[in-house]
Amino acid sequence: MAPAMTTLKGEPLDKGALEGLLRRRMFFTPSFEIYGGVSGLYDYGPPGTALQSNILDVWRKHFVLEENMLEVDCTVLTPEIVFKTSGHVDRFADWMCTDPKSGEILRADHFVEDVLEARLKADKEARGQATKTEDKAVDAKRAKKAAALKQQAVKLEDAVVQEYEEVLAKIDNYDNVGLGELIEKYDLRCKSGERPTAPVAFNLMFQTSIGPSSNLPGYLRPETAQGQFLNFAKLLDFNQGAMPFASASIGKSYRNEISPRGGLLRVREFLMAEIEHFVDPESNKKHSRFHEVENIELELLPRDVQLAGKSTTIRKTVGDAVKEKIIDNETLGYFLARIHLFLIKIGVDPTKLRFRQHMANEMAHYASDCYDAELLTSSGWIECVGCADRSAYDLTVHTKATQTPLVVRQQLSEPKIVESWELEVNKKLFGPKFKKDAKAVEAAVLATSQEQREAFAKDMETAGKITLDVPVVGSVELGKELVTFEFKKITQHVREYTPNVIEPSFGIGRILSALCEHTYWVREGDEARGVLSFPPVVAPTSVLVAPLSNNKDFTPIVDRVSRKLRVAGISTRVDASSASIGKRYARNDELGTALGITVDFQTVTDGTITLRDRDTTRQVRAEEDKIVAAISEIVRGFKRWEDVEKELPSFTSQEQ
Amino acid sequence: MAPAMTTLKGEPLDKGALEGLLRRRMFFTPSFEIYGGVSGLYDYGPPGTALQSNILDVWRKHFVLEENMLEVDCTVLTPEIVFKTSGHVDRFADWMCTDPKSGEILRADHFVEDVLEARLKADKEARGQATKTEDKAVDAKRAKKAAALKQQAVKLEDAVVQEYEEVLAKIDNYDNVGLGELIEKYDLRCKSGERPTAPVAFNLMFQTSIGPSSNLPGYLRPETAQGQFLNFAKLLDFNQGAMPFASASIGKSYRNEISPRGGLLRVREFLMAEIEHFVDPESNKKHSRFHEVENIELELLPRDVQLAGKSTTIRKTVGDAVKEKIIDNETLGYFLARIHLFLIKIGVDPTKLRFRQHMANEMAHYASDCYDAELLTSSGWIECVGCADRSAYDLTVHTKATQTPLVVRQQLSEPKIVESWELEVNKKLFGPKFKKDAKAVEAAVLATSQEQREAFAKDMETAGKITLDVPVVGSVELGKELVTFEFKKITQHVREYTPNVIEPSFGIGRILSALCEHTYWVREGDEARGVLSFPPVVAPTSVLVAPLSNNKDFTPIVDRVSRKLRVAGISTRVDASSASIGKRYARNDELGTALGITVDFQTVTDGTITLRDRDTTRQVRAEEDKIVAAISEIVRGFKRWEDVEKELPSFTSQEQ
Repeated sequence: MAPAMTTLKGEPLDKGALEGLLRRRMFFTPSFEIYGGVSGLYDYGPPGTALQSNILDVWRKHFVLEENMLEVDCTVLTPEIVFKTSGHVDRFADWMCTDPKSGEILRADHFVEDVLEARLKADKEARGQATKTEDKAVDAKRAKKAAALKQQAVKLEDAVVQEYEEVLAKIDNYDNVGLGELIEKYDLRCKSGERPTAPVAFNLMFQTSIGPSSNLPGYLRPETAQGQFLNFAKLLDFNQGAMPFASASIGKSYRNEISPRGGLLRVREFLMAEIEHFVDPESNKKHSRFHEVENIELELLPRDVQLAGKSTTIRKTVGDAVKEKIIDNETLGYFLARIHLFLIKIGVDPTKLRFRQHMANEMAHYASDCYDAELLTSSGWIECVGCADRSAYDLTVHTKATQTPLVVRQQLSEPKIVESWELEVNKKLFGPKFKKDAKAVEAAVLATSQEQREAFAKDMETAGKITLDVPVVGSVELGKELVTFEFKKITQHVREYTPNVIEPSFGIGRILSALCEHTYWVREGDEARGVLSFPPVVAPTSVLVAPLSNNKDFTPIVDRVSRKLRVAGISTRVDASSASIGKRYARNDELGTALGITVDFQTVTDGTITLRDRDTTRQVRAEEDKIVAAISEIVRGFKRWEDVEKELPSFTSQEQ
Repeated sequence: MAPAMTTLKGEPLDKGALEGLLRRRMFFTPSFEIYGGVSGLYDYGPPGTALQSNILDVWRKHFVLEENMLEVDCTVLTPEIVFKTSGHVDRFADWMCTDPKSGEILRADHFVEDVLEARLKADKEARGQATKTEDKAVDAKRAKKAAALKQQAVKLEDAVVQEYEEVLAKIDNYDNVGLGELIEKYDLRCKSGERPTAPVAFNLMFQTSIGPSSNLPGYLRPETAQGQFLNFAKLLDFNQGAMPFASASIGKSYRNEISPRGGLLRVREFLMAEIEHFVDPESNKKHSRFHEVENIELELLPRDVQLAGKSTTIRKTVGDAVKEKIIDNETLGYFLARIHLFLIKIGVDPTKLRFRQHMANEMAHYASDCYDAELLTSSGWIECVGCADRSAYDLTVHTKATQTPLVVRQQLSEPKIVESWELEVNKKLFGPKFKKDAKAVEAAVLATSQEQREAFAKDMETAGKITLDVPVVGSVELGKELVTFEFKKITQHVREYTPNVIEPSFGIGRILSALCEHTYWVREGDEARGVLSFPPVVAPTSVLVAPLSNNKDFTPIVDRVSRKLRVAGISTRVDASSASIGKRYARNDELGTALGITVDFQTVTDGTITLRDRDTTRQVRAEEDKIVAAISEIVRGFKRWEDVEKELPSFTSQEQ
């Protein structure tokens, strides 16, 4: 059970107040609101867009530039065949059921969750149990659901309570049959009072048609990964054949959620930043820079801890975790550590970050192992970065489907002698004998395994013919004149292999949303005021420039200072409105603006300006150029406010 | 007729060679190529993605930060109702026809163009005319079309040649009827030998369905503008009510082109950067910073010059052009000048840039005036930035459709007395009298114009009743007891108005594609080698770091230098491959890498490194930190290579 959410200062988080702030200051806003809105679609306003853009900028520097990754930008529109091959057309689905009376469409697992939680809440009420502090968030959520379902206070058997809690703990593990059984067993009812229809699969990809003839069905990609896989051969070539290497991509992806909820946490259109790190499977997935991160400590929640029904994290260095096989290999460990460093850099609260390993049955169809970076939010622990080992899955299926080898050819330093069963097909006779089936028969022969070939060689020896099952065609007989088998020694100069892929995948919207909760706190004063303490490197605006009043002498100074800041590449907003300095600072604290400059009458006399720190509200005063230089150092992350305070004279004034 | 395309050095452009380079170096590549590709979809490889990202970075600094624009990020998925209102569902279409024999779908205007051009080429051949130099590009294009249509050399009447040329010059002006008439009149035939079907409208928006119930049809936006309009009220509020202001957005848009061609110039998924500048229509569209740009000279191709059948541009300062009404107003002029400065900054050749005014009949349905920034490319003059005056069109239609006022309320310094016909509706009687039609009747009454109300007041006076046409309901009679009209004096303290919108709209892919042509040239030497002379500020990679050989002493130096460069925010690639320094430089010239560092044996001895300029291949040699500082100045645009050459000692070496 997730702990109750707190602000940056450890006070209980008033989620309503924060959400009010984020909407009022236009961090984000429901899309098409004047048309009634569309659930699961949000627009980012100016501070949200700037925050997002700064997070991406840090991401690009931290990952792409630091590690010479090959960034690509592939299309969102994708022809069906690609997702047919990748398995998304068949398996990228949620279970959906319908209220037979109202026609309302429900996501089956959410529906089961809602009813059980409502009943548990109603039970608690009936028992008159006091709410325990650590359950406050859960209780509030359940109360809401109970109200929505108009659940009366009814006491349950103790055993039933326990069963419900167990079901809820593993709700992600049920498929359509399992969910259907739960609905029947517990007689779960929709708002209309009816039982919902049996759960059926609903594919989460948005479908469209490419071109005018509507015979090319396409989808909006649900992840950016496929474009990177399809370009593997070209990327390897661009990388001058060197392995390992990583590609990276920042772009929108789409999932047609059945009933989106949870604000920015579950949306239908979202920005992803994904890395595909290609590695030789025979390298033990070692990483050349692992030593740089091996002493970093992570909060880990491995699979076996979860299987034991616990949620207590283990604090371990990445080095130890890899040694103890809690993390499978160096490359996975390296990226978990780099993800940790990235999240801390942009302002995530390290006490609200953990790395949880996926259970075997909750992994995506392509993954062989997966750790999620989860951030604690008012909705509980939320997956914000996935770090999956996709093994050779994708490159293999695309190679098969297209007959284009997505492989690495490695020159061997010493030639290798390999023994294997080879075969030869007599093509001249195949055509006349099998006619239109000739190609299919030949393909089936060539597709035989080493074991099959060995057995066939024996059959040929003894019976003079073999019998082979050919797909579609059926069983065929082949004599010696058609095909021969031979055990050969072959000298290989080149080793050919399909790389494995480690994939760190970032949900930028979720990170952004969690970051707002992690950096939020309330400054007590005449009136309590919200503050968003983003690190300067990602703050939507770095500096507010505020003239004390609309005195005309201030204007050229304000223009000059803000021009200097802009030239230095520092994002700046001038607020020359008639509101008091205190009000303007309060507005900018809510916007998360890192620093504030005031131009006052003293500036006109002696050329000094004041600089205010958002988090402490303390100020220093110095000449314009010194202040601009100090700002530049803070914004680029080279100095902290404490450093600047030591160097420049402090200044005290009334804010209000 | 467009002049023949040349390289940066004025030599004829070998388009095939440049395209080969761009594909080989993975600037861009057809999407899903291993699955056979999908026309109109391209992926950007590492250098293309970096170039795009750097162009956007300059764009954001040049426009958004410089002018405090409110950047937003709105969804691509859009419910149908929004584009119904904006007019895109009804009018955003091209004309399409079909080859009745092969079923091939053709874009009607392109089909007419293709056949006429093929015939003109065939005529020329029959006449045995020598190709004039200035027509080379046109001739080559026509020859290709003639070959595709297997057009035999046939001589045409002189009058027919003239007619064809006239049709081609105004091909954009024909609608379905006009195109159908041309097909009939000139007996235009498809490849199959048949005449195509009559042209019909094909909407260019990609359609999809949002949510699981498929009753919410949606589209992928064809422009980013609508999201900005729908958020107008919130943006005005965010801007603390101050006018004028601009919003901005960078994002993907989609157009389901009938038959895309021309590489990156006409694609189905593309990146746009759009600005919506909201301005008071009663301000004469003055701009407060106009004085900063009024002396900038532009190459203009106004509407009347084109009407006279000419394509000679006029060179004029923006100030004069606005004075002479060649450019309608200061705000439009301001943005044209800012667009000019932006394009030059990223490396567009100023001699291949012009601003062409739209003809009245070629403007989008929402525009009241429009200038395009056109770049000369091997496909002729191409629209890369549109700068349209959308007047109050969008805000007005969305206000009407949603009943949400997208207006500015301006406090008047002096109250204004306005006389107008007001009316009062007796709601108590409306319900019982009109039952289910009551709302429609009331809406129709309230929607009456001042003129109608005046007439109705008279009718009421004389006949005691009025007759009103109510949409859907039909004609209804209303007596005095239901509605009364009165001519009133009203004191207004607030002026309410719908802003006009000036929209600079950038097609990033087209700009990028043209930029590659503008910066390309061939360095003569032992073998001719391509160079892309991007300005350092947008070059995909700023610096190549190349150790002379794989000597181990070089490694720590290479690591240290590249770390220093990364910390300074400079994009760096290390190439420690075994290729010769000359080969590595040649590869990087093709990639447009601005600068190159070599680490050699002297570096190990005295700590100096060499710095090479891509364009001149000249080198300087100095201590590491001096070189890093010089690079930083060049990349941020503060110094040119010539400045650095004056400050640091030159160095001469063999490249090969």
